[in-house]
Amino acid sequence: MNAKAERLMNKRTAFAGSEANGEPFIKAMIVERREGSTFYFCSNNGSMRTAQWKANPNACIYFVGGPIYRGVMLSGKMEIINDPEVKRRLWRRSMKSIYKGGVTDPDYCVLKFTASKGRYYSMRGSEDFEL
Amino acid sequence: MNAKAERLMNKRTAFAGSEANGEPFIKAMIVERREGSTFYFCSNNGSMRTAQWKANPNACIYFVGGPIYRGVMLSGKMEIINDPEVKRRLWRRSMKSIYKGGVTDPDYCVLKFTASKGRYYSMRGSEDFEL
Repeated sequence: MNAKAERLMNKRTAFAGSEANGEPFIKAMIVERREGSTFYFCSNNGSMRTAQWKANPNACIYFVGGPIYRGVMLSGKMEIINDPEVKRRLWRRSMKSIYKGGVTDPDYCVLKFTASKGRYYSMRGSEDFEL
Repeated sequence: MNAKAERLMNKRTAFAGSEANGEPFIKAMIVERREGSTFYFCSNNGSMRTAQWKANPNACIYFVGGPIYRGVMLSGKMEIINDPEVKRRLWRRSMKSIYKGGVTDPDYCVLKFTASKGRYYSMRGSEDFEL
């Protein structure tokens, strides 16, 4: 795999894309954990984005670096996870301010993104890579 | 309009979303000019993204701010502009390193995004706004 792309994939902020009715949507999300080409995020069962990925799991996540422009887009699938074990594993105490009910708050869910392919961008152009 | 969203909309880097075959795509792009809820970018007629917006003009652009998370997503349409006047207006001399043929390079095109609605994100949640 492209070593520069690999470095970008360790960034904490990802821009996550979803699709609904032929329209694209973007939101910045914090990567809570990365395991190879699998990325975990914390989200809400009641959010617009969770509903969109439930209806259509097609997703992408994008990382950007500087000062000279570099970017990487990963394409794959987003799963909504409500398994108590996984939710407990990703829980941090500071999340209590968002999920009042704590780790068992029914609105708290985990989003698991699994990438199937990547595209690396730089000033010199772009190239696909396999994962 | 939301004043915090308005400030974010003056950022130079936008994350632009396109859609193809039910899949979302994201790419960071530099805002070359903003006129209210219209944003101009420089791109390539031969690029994957330009082809996607030609086939489906549905688009979004997303801006992010810090240190405490704030974001704004604008939804609208992306047009591919090859009008020589518009292309000349947005041309900067440094772009010669990308478009070897200069301002008349057939690969150089302008992307014009017109927003129709917005959504503002913060730690406290999100809210739609009109433009």
